[in-house]
Amino acid sequence: MNLAEIQRVVDGPGTGAAMRDMITALYPICRSITGNGFRETLRGIRQYLPLEMREVPSGTPVFDWTVPMEWNIRDAYIAAPDGTRVVDFRRSNLHVMSYSIPVKARMRLEELQKHLHTLPDRPEWIPYRTSYYKENWGFCLSHRQLKELPEAEYDVCIDSSLEPGHLTYGECFLPGESSEEILISTHCCHPSLCNDNLSGIAVATFLGRALEGMPRKFSYRFLFVPGTIGSITWLAMNQDRIDRIRHGLVLTGVGDAGGITYKRSRRGDASIDRAMAHVLHHQQQPYKVIDFFPYGYDERQYCSPGFNLPVGCLMRTPHGEYPEYHTSADDLQFVHEDSMWEMLVLSLRTFFVLENDRTPVSTNPYCEPQLGKRGLYRAVAGQTEGALREMALLWVLNLADGRHSLLDIADRAQMSFESIYSAACALSEHGLLN
Amino acid sequence: MNLAEIQRVVDGPGTGAAMRDMITALYPICRSITGNGFRETLRGIRQYLPLEMREVPSGTPVFDWTVPMEWNIRDAYIAAPDGTRVVDFRRSNLHVMSYSIPVKARMRLEELQKHLHTLPDRPEWIPYRTSYYKENWGFCLSHRQLKELPEAEYDVCIDSSLEPGHLTYGECFLPGESSEEILISTHCCHPSLCNDNLSGIAVATFLGRALEGMPRKFSYRFLFVPGTIGSITWLAMNQDRIDRIRHGLVLTGVGDAGGITYKRSRRGDASIDRAMAHVLHHQQQPYKVIDFFPYGYDERQYCSPGFNLPVGCLMRTPHGEYPEYHTSADDLQFVHEDSMWEMLVLSLRTFFVLENDRTPVSTNPYCEPQLGKRGLYRAVAGQTEGALREMALLWVLNLADGRHSLLDIADRAQMSFESIYSAACALSEHGLLN
Amino acid sequence: MNLAEIQRVVDGPGTGAAMRDMITALYPICRSITGNGFRETLRGIRQYLPLEMREVPSGTPVFDWTVPMEWNIRDAYIAAPDGTRVVDFRRSNLHVMSYSIPVKARMRLEELQKHLHTLPDRPEWIPYRTSYYKENWGFCLSHRQLKELPEAEYDVCIDSSLEPGHLTYGECFLPGESSEEILISTHCCHPSLCNDNLSGIAVATFLGRALEGMPRKFSYRFLFVPGTIGSITWLAMNQDRIDRIRHGLVLTGVGDAGGITYKRSRRGDASIDRAMAHVLHHQQQPYKVIDFFPYGYDERQYCSPGFNLPVGCLMRTPHGEYPEYHTSADDLQFVHEDSMWEMLVLSLRTFFVLENDRTPVSTNPYCEPQLGKRGLYRAVAGQTEGALREMALLWVLNLADGRHSLLDIADRAQMSFESIYSAACALSEHGLLN
Repeated sequence: MNLAEIQRVVDGPGTGAAMRDMITALYPICRSITGNGFRETLRGIRQYLPLEMREVPSGTPVFDWTVPMEWNIRDAYIAAPDGTRVVDFRRSNLHVMSYSIPVKARMRLEELQKHLHTLPDRPEWIPYRTSYYKENWGFCLSHRQLKELPEAEYDVCIDSSLEPGHLTYGECFLPGESSEEILISTHCCHPSLCNDNLSGIAVATFLGRALEGMPRKFSYRFLFVPGTIGSITWLAMNQDRIDRIRHGLVLTGVGDAGGITYKRSRRGDASIDRAMAHVLHHQQQPYKVIDFFPYGYDERQYCSPGFNLPVGCLMRTPHGEYPEYHTSADDLQFVHEDSMWEMLVLSLRTFFVLENDRTPVSTNPYCEPQLGKRGLYRAVAGQTEGALREMALLWVLNLADGRHSLLDIADRAQMSFESIYSAACALSEHGLLN
Repeated sequence: MNLAEIQRVVDGPGTGAAMRDMITALYPICRSITGNGFRETLRGIRQYLPLEMREVPSGTPVFDWTVPMEWNIRDAYIAAPDGTRVVDFRRSNLHVMSYSIPVKARMRLEELQKHLHTLPDRPEWIPYRTSYYKENWGFCLSHRQLKELPEAEYDVCIDSSLEPGHLTYGECFLPGESSEEILISTHCCHPSLCNDNLSGIAVATFLGRALEGMPRKFSYRFLFVPGTIGSITWLAMNQDRIDRIRHGLVLTGVGDAGGITYKRSRRGDASIDRAMAHVLHHQQQPYKVIDFFPYGYDERQYCSPGFNLPVGCLMRTPHGEYPEYHTSADDLQFVHEDSMWEMLVLSLRTFFVLENDRTPVSTNPYCEPQLGKRGLYRAVAGQTEGALREMALLWVLNLADGRHSLLDIADRAQMSFESIYSAACALSEHGLLN
Repeated sequence: MNLAEIQRVVDGPGTGAAMRDMITALYPICRSITGNGFRETLRGIRQYLPLEMREVPSGTPVFDWTVPMEWNIRDAYIAAPDGTRVVDFRRSNLHVMSYSIPVKARMRLEELQKHLHTLPDRPEWIPYRTSYYKENWGFCLSHRQLKELPEAEYDVCIDSSLEPGHLTYGECFLPGESSEEILISTHCCHPSLCNDNLSGIAVATFLGRALEGMPRKFSYRFLFVPGTIGSITWLAMNQDRIDRIRHGLVLTGVGDAGGITYKRSRRGDASIDRAMAHVLHHQQQPYKVIDFFPYGYDERQYCSPGFNLPVGCLMRTPHGEYPEYHTSADDLQFVHEDSMWEMLVLSLRTFFVLENDRTPVSTNPYCEPQLGKRGLYRAVAGQTEGALREMALLWVLNLADGRHSLLDIADRAQMSFESIYSAACALSEHGLLN
């Protein structure tokens, strides 16, 4: 990985538009934590990135959990006495609570109401609800529509199945010079919701495409998993490989218009935490870096105390902090090409830091070496051009005592990693660093 | 000690009024660091709390100090030529400098003036003065009165005695499951001053009453001592027992209307310091936590470098920072039932933290355990009720790695110790914690 | 060194005026990093302070550098066709770029212009330029004058020599009780510039005079060197003595009217850093303490990673942050007697801290010793006079556990080192400290 290659990706035309195309294609699919919608989504990703599809049978014990039955759904509706579908799965797959068991019944509104979910505060939006681990069924609809439903007997139908089958996930491994890995994990279990998490799927996929074409120091492993149970299953299946993970990133909600949020790993001072904070500090967008907390997405599993992996979570507005979260308003209009593109670039720049950080040792630790005779210094003292480049050279030389990494030096010098890295390269070329 | 029992004390009617009654009864007594007034005060405390009265003979060496002569006073006055008592000990025991030697003389105002103490800035108030360790005598009076005294010869009488006797202090020991102790120390040597320190005496006494009726993990030791020489004497007499003290609190000036002040132990990061700061942070009253400094009350002795005990000091407005301090204006109107009651509750809540803090270890450190199947989690994801309780469960599980105590977890989660403790109890009941 | 002696220097009349006299005498000399101007300057310093003059031959290897040829200049000018000197070295030695090689030519303005340096933003000022390590020549002049030069053929003359010779520096060593050294280094290579660095020369010289007359715990070494190559040469010549340096200070730009700036050593927490910050905090002038960065003056060499000496840099406005820097406007009017005098006093106070800091151990660690019986405490409790002195006594006693130095105690007590030191002396006299 080198700066020119990253620049090529950054400048590459149409990446944002391509991510949007991908999301648009995947949007209509009814995904859940298992089932054919998940498989179809992985096939969609595979059009961009080579992907192994893994299938784990229902009932498989994974730590304290069990791989659940596979859920599939064909149709669902609430029909008025005249047969009109007043709520119709074919119009929005959010209408059915995910993992609803099959239902075929006629019932009065009063009875039906216990199974209806709405958002009184947002009367036009359909909420998103799930009941993976407790048998239940339900419909979600707009509060406006609920209020307009006349008292009547309704035909209620959920044509779903909940049967032994498989949990499916996708895995893309890009080998690097080293067997040490950077893990990128994104959840793919939500139905027609765009920011959460088609945006994460798109950014992860295009990160993979970018990295595929570059020399890599680290190996990169991309996981496209159902939330929670997917990462638990992967961790359970790969316990012998987990100690290869050196850095990791969960991508979620990376497409909205809000500022960038990086949630640190549980360790708080892992290299990925420092590298990400550094890159964010030196870019121009608004951002915040927040401490780990045991809620959110799959970082909860990667950062459980037994693993405590150096895995942070990259997002824009944190989940739950925007009203559109887990509602029908998280639609294609809610995500922005530029937002996703910025996250792609940010991730690559952070990986660049991780791949290129090293601890230089000066070959001339006693007094400064004479930069001028090597053409590395202004000829006429007192002129100011090139001063910043010289400062980078001086910082690297001053701290090249074997106890400061390039990232340490960049942070202390309050200069970008790229400037410090370039200075270190120039000094190495002149034999001034080991 | 458990939450319900603390709540019972907190809600118990009349505790504030009972503390006020106690103070009202003790207010008229002329206390000093030795003598019958001190003994009478201990007898007053004994009406509420079982108390051992200890007597240490004058002349006993205690570290660098010596137990002083016992001082008693019967009467004192300054009388005008016509026999009128212009300054009369019977009106206020503050009129006589504590430890004044006997005097029987006639002298002109000019000569007498060297022995008169007033507060020119507060012309209505009588100051409080002592001269324990240098033989001297004096009267304290209001500045207004001094200015009105006509030039004349006055009869001066102090009918006191300063003779070999004893230093007296009170000790109440409440044994707990463990021989490790929490020390509560309060000074009882001031005459008719209410905030300093009848308030401390009352809060310590009612703390003792509350703890007497509860199961206790720690043993609790209450010391009712004369300031400085009393704690020095106790430390000197109990050197072999001092290493049992795990936490301690000096109570002083806990009745005024000002905000709460906690002065950390010399260590600065003792458990009592952290627990008190935590409880203060999660209550609603204004407060400040200040660093240790070697001035104030008996924490000076407990925190001397040879002992360096984890003893903090709990007060409201720090001594010397309110004008009424050490004057006749520190009277019954200056202290408030609610102020004392808050300090009682605060101390109990802090002891609750100290008694119940422990370091949990998760039985399922790899990935989160499945809370849902144990009834510990919302059935329908996406609904928000119970979220705070779930966050407490998740925080405990995530940090239950044997390196974080419940108080550590509460601080990191920014949740109250009580929430985290309750979550830990629930997890333990389900076998999820060791 | 004791407080009375420092006070004598502080109060000594005429020190500021004497420093100004010294600067006025040295101002006209054309200094560079080598040559007769440098030698003449050292002879000027020697009128105030005993100084060894060291000569190191051109071509001597010093770490990565080589001692350069010696440069001397006799005359230089640009003359109009009628023979009038339009630019004349005799009017200002800034007119010639330092280390200009000999030139004798006639050229048109267009060709000459490549060798002319001006400050378009400051059209009245002459810039200061050097080209020590690349053979070049040039003239510096005001931008106003450049714009007025008519197109013509000019006679250009630089009557200089660049030949094997010596690098010269001055060294003054004041032995103390210990062979451990405090290093004071100041650069002397700039021509007619006053703040940078005749002010540093003057303050260093008068520091030496003051210390010469005092008993000294440390030995003091003063270096009057050409910038960069001078400190490199000294370090190369004295590698076996470098580990004696316990503290050090580079003095530069100490005469302007701006606030005081102390730039920490690379270590950041060296004793000199803490002592200087402490003394600055307790004086009345505006100041700032900034972190080390590898640019500036000879601290760059002393703080290179192989040496990493505890050497800070004391200045007023940092170089480059005032427009007069390295221009003809840095003249005799730009420096102030008071500014230099403050730096002298500040340095002495800091050396006082370094010489007198020690770690006291209480002889009475269990409870406070009784100060009253030793006459160290107020007789009548409740009176406030002497309270600050008592606080200093109590702080020293409380922290005299062998783990806190007097400076630690002063910082924690937020009292001046002098108060804490005086308290420690009083306690030692009474046998209360070891």
